[in-house]
Amino acid sequence: MGKFHGHAYPGLFLFCNGLYQAIVIFSDSLQSLCPPKKKGRWARLWKISYEGLLKIVAGSLLVVYVNNCIEGGLILMDRELPPRFLYSKEWQHLTMFTLLILNGCVDVMSKNLLPQRCVVLEKGALALSFYELLLLMVSHAKGSSGIELQVHSLLILVVFLLLLVLTVELWAPEMFQLWMMETLLILVLGSWLIQAGFILYRPVSGYPWDDDDMNDLMFVTTFFCWHVMCDALCLFAIYGFSYFWHRCCYPSLKMMGSKEAPYHKSIPEPLCRLLQEIEQPEKEDQAPLLAKSSPRDTA
Amino acid sequence: MGKFHGHAYPGLFLFCNGLYQAIVIFSDSLQSLCPPKKKGRWARLWKISYEGLLKIVAGSLLVVYVNNCIEGGLILMDRELPPRFLYSKEWQHLTMFTLLILNGCVDVMSKNLLPQRCVVLEKGALALSFYELLLLMVSHAKGSSGIELQVHSLLILVVFLLLLVLTVELWAPEMFQLWMMETLLILVLGSWLIQAGFILYRPVSGYPWDDDDMNDLMFVTTFFCWHVMCDALCLFAIYGFSYFWHRCCYPSLKMMGSKEAPYHKSIPEPLCRLLQEIEQPEKEDQAPLLAKSSPRDTA
Amino acid sequence: MGKFHGHAYPGLFLFCNGLYQAIVIFSDSLQSLCPPKKKGRWARLWKISYEGLLKIVAGSLLVVYVNNCIEGGLILMDRELPPRFLYSKEWQHLTMFTLLILNGCVDVMSKNLLPQRCVVLEKGALALSFYELLLLMVSHAKGSSGIELQVHSLLILVVFLLLLVLTVELWAPEMFQLWMMETLLILVLGSWLIQAGFILYRPVSGYPWDDDDMNDLMFVTTFFCWHVMCDALCLFAIYGFSYFWHRCCYPSLKMMGSKEAPYHKSIPEPLCRLLQEIEQPEKEDQAPLLAKSSPRDTA
Amino acid sequence: MGKFHGHAYPGLFLFCNGLYQAIVIFSDSLQSLCPPKKKGRWARLWKISYEGLLKIVAGSLLVVYVNNCIEGGLILMDRELPPRFLYSKEWQHLTMFTLLILNGCVDVMSKNLLPQRCVVLEKGALALSFYELLLLMVSHAKGSSGIELQVHSLLILVVFLLLLVLTVELWAPEMFQLWMMETLLILVLGSWLIQAGFILYRPVSGYPWDDDDMNDLMFVTTFFCWHVMCDALCLFAIYGFSYFWHRCCYPSLKMMGSKEAPYHKSIPEPLCRLLQEIEQPEKEDQAPLLAKSSPRDTA
Repeated sequence: MGKFHGHAYPGLFLFCNGLYQAIVIFSDSLQSLCPPKKKGRWARLWKISYEGLLKIVAGSLLVVYVNNCIEGGLILMDRELPPRFLYSKEWQHLTMFTLLILNGCVDVMSKNLLPQRCVVLEKGALALSFYELLLLMVSHAKGSSGIELQVHSLLILVVFLLLLVLTVELWAPEMFQLWMMETLLILVLGSWLIQAGFILYRPVSGYPWDDDDMNDLMFVTTFFCWHVMCDALCLFAIYGFSYFWHRCCYPSLKMMGSKEAPYHKSIPEPLCRLLQEIEQPEKEDQAPLLAKSSPRDTA
Repeated sequence: MGKFHGHAYPGLFLFCNGLYQAIVIFSDSLQSLCPPKKKGRWARLWKISYEGLLKIVAGSLLVVYVNNCIEGGLILMDRELPPRFLYSKEWQHLTMFTLLILNGCVDVMSKNLLPQRCVVLEKGALALSFYELLLLMVSHAKGSSGIELQVHSLLILVVFLLLLVLTVELWAPEMFQLWMMETLLILVLGSWLIQAGFILYRPVSGYPWDDDDMNDLMFVTTFFCWHVMCDALCLFAIYGFSYFWHRCCYPSLKMMGSKEAPYHKSIPEPLCRLLQEIEQPEKEDQAPLLAKSSPRDTA
Repeated sequence: MGKFHGHAYPGLFLFCNGLYQAIVIFSDSLQSLCPPKKKGRWARLWKISYEGLLKIVAGSLLVVYVNNCIEGGLILMDRELPPRFLYSKEWQHLTMFTLLILNGCVDVMSKNLLPQRCVVLEKGALALSFYELLLLMVSHAKGSSGIELQVHSLLILVVFLLLLVLTVELWAPEMFQLWMMETLLILVLGSWLIQAGFILYRPVSGYPWDDDDMNDLMFVTTFFCWHVMCDALCLFAIYGFSYFWHRCCYPSLKMMGSKEAPYHKSIPEPLCRLLQEIEQPEKEDQAPLLAKSSPRDTA
Repeated sequence: MGKFHGHAYPGLFLFCNGLYQAIVIFSDSLQSLCPPKKKGRWARLWKISYEGLLKIVAGSLLVVYVNNCIEGGLILMDRELPPRFLYSKEWQHLTMFTLLILNGCVDVMSKNLLPQRCVVLEKGALALSFYELLLLMVSHAKGSSGIELQVHSLLILVVFLLLLVLTVELWAPEMFQLWMMETLLILVLGSWLIQAGFILYRPVSGYPWDDDDMNDLMFVTTFFCWHVMCDALCLFAIYGFSYFWHRCCYPSLKMMGSKEAPYHKSIPEPLCRLLQEIEQPEKEDQAPLLAKSSPRDTA
């Protein structure tokens, strides 16, 4: 697997994934205000977990690709005496892609095959995958030094934080702050993977970075901070755009919301609605008798 | 104590323990739906903590075995000048087995001798044992390097995570996510201990692993990831089997549960029931007046 | 940027910031007892986020200053072959100041531009800034050793703890214990930065500290502990002063509060009131029908 | 300060403190069942914080002792050129004792001078002291190696865990599990300090331990595990004794409590009562009107 492509393409995939997730979160807050439409014959199709299918297809293609890259096939040991292990990096990549496929399978199963969606199962599978990813990356980075070590340490740091967030999400799968953290970390992971490809294998200046130069080492961290900043601004811009789009499309809702609003309410309008939407089903469970007379059903 | 047996047998014990625990958790969710049967003359026998007794017996046998392995008995210091400590590894093993016996005693005491079961005491004793186990393993692994260090580091990581889970369980002893984590970690600990025995003392190829070969070091982590994956799939299979078995045996309950189910409910049927069962006694405490008319007392 | 000034001035800024924050927290508890006055024509002006504006102005001035310090401007790479990165430390400082400006922008936006204040956004931006600050400081301290390393390690420790506190504040933005921790850590960070400037660049004795002297290394930690102690006493003194000032000004409230007070109440009067004030708006949200008859509206 | 006494006496103080704390916790659960007696003229004397006074007296004596140990007084720097710092270890001890005095002052102030006891303040001061103690101990242990390093690492580990527990107690100052952890850690800290004095300065065999002997290093950890085990058994014995003493003295209460007890109740009788007692004042605050008609007052 090409060294540059091996970093840049997964990075691009993760970055797009993060952008998509950010858009979904914010647009969910808008859709929750419109009357639900998709109850027709295509409703069932809409519910299919495209993300899960995409993971399965992408993972399978990558497994085939890794297998084809090596002439003679991906064997575990050679036939000499004493037998030696072969292709350790390729086997680690294969493990990562297998994890991706398994994750996709769990997503599809939870969303389409089980009678009810099991969010804990999805989150648990995802957290477990990142846990193994962390181990593989630590083992990956062990032999490296200088610039390569620095670049990979920052990657490992992001994966570790993502792992913590995903673990906490097992208990609070729909908390807004955790979603934001997860999305931001995925964006940073993606954009930094792309940058890592450029730093390590295609430096923009055309000359490789110098492992022994303290200046270069410090700039790796500086660039990483710029990535975090840009990704956070990117997330903020998506939110701001969806907020203003919402105010333009539904001006009637504006007055209702901002009138006599309490000072300490810490979350602006669309997110509040989003959170209300999330918490409502639980309340409806607890008071099924009152559900019929609620204004939502009469509307 | 034989080096291979010293790793493989405890590993097998832990793995079977994990499997047993997984089956108990899932079958509990099924039993909670049937009317309780065991109220006859054998009911009291059923409540005896077999797990605690097993721990006491196994620990005692191992203590006797370690004592017998060394000719002249397990003495602490020799009689030369200056006196030196002897058998440091054996004393550490003895400490571990003593912890196992004490744990069993606490289990038996809590479940059979105390007027009421004291879950916090059991969990506390278990967490304390793992805490000491972690210290002993870190001390154990200090002198090692290369493959041995890598294998033991992964073991220590699992014990550390298990320690964290057990500590949190002191506050939430019956939370489903923590149970799953604990069971998975015990399975991984068991299967990896077995693998450790093979890697370090009986390599399958017949040739020892090479400490200086980066390939070999990386494959240790890769194999560990495969273990985690397989153990998670194993857990998943046990759950799936118990789920389908439940659907076959009690088809009437299926309709009741899946009708008009809220979308955001994150846990599928049997686990929901399991969790409901767990949370009920607390509610009954808070509403003692209503307890008489509940279907449980009339049954 | 002068080495001594580069440590002492940011330290002074942070220390004053911490003192200001401590005074605001305690005086808030007093103001909550007086009838609200500032409802006149200057009320809107009062609500402008001076802190945010100060951050923007200070950050901008520092960016201009860093740019002017270097003759030929702050360029990223020289034009030689192979091109080398230049001014790594200055670029890191620039990144820190940009973070300060962005933070100020977020503060102003949340408090003045958005229809409702968004505390989560402010706290998130602050936490993210400290996260990047930690990375930059670790990278900063990498090349150092001896006294310099010890001084910077303690700084990094404080920033790390502050980061943890700010992260937890995302979920509990108005919890008293977290506020106290945050204020104390900011005070320690500020006073230790000033001390760091003196230790590293202007030792009081006139002779530089000795990197190889164990005594000197130990005294760095001792001095840090004295700083923590003094800052804690300082915080305690501010609280005590505001408490006694409160008792002198509002003696009538004293009787009301201390009569038949429950023994286990763990927070003395003004803080209790402060916390009550904070928690009230939430209750008012939940019971909008009762809000009209509350004493607050009739006053 | 003598090296052996410097470890053994603080250890003895901490161990006795831990024992006293354990006895207080358990006897509190018994006293809560008797009618309150101490409402006479000595009631006010009873409420004086003897623990706080003891801390002040002990700390002051130790400060005087350290000052007297050094001829010429405890000066910070000598008068040579370049001036050097002197007595770094003694200054660190002095800092620790000052922390002890301050802690005692805060205890006395909170319990006797403030109109209401402020548990958060006490716990915060204690946590802060342990935080600084940790820093001083890390700095203390930096120059050591071999056996000394191993002994001190285990001490630092205990202090770190104690710090975590005390930090969490800021939010839950009266949770039973945290109290048990705190008491156990104080017992371990005390008994291990005594042992450390013997290992490092008065080995029982009469010959010093060998830094280069792997056996000796491993036995340090083994002995530490035995300490943890013994201290946990000691705590358990205190609890068991107070439990049986309670059953003998108040047999009438036994029947009331064990009748129809729910299966999942995880805490045995006296502790349950203890916890009920702790949680009651809060409930009484919330429903003062109902308090008069409760069965407790009529009894």
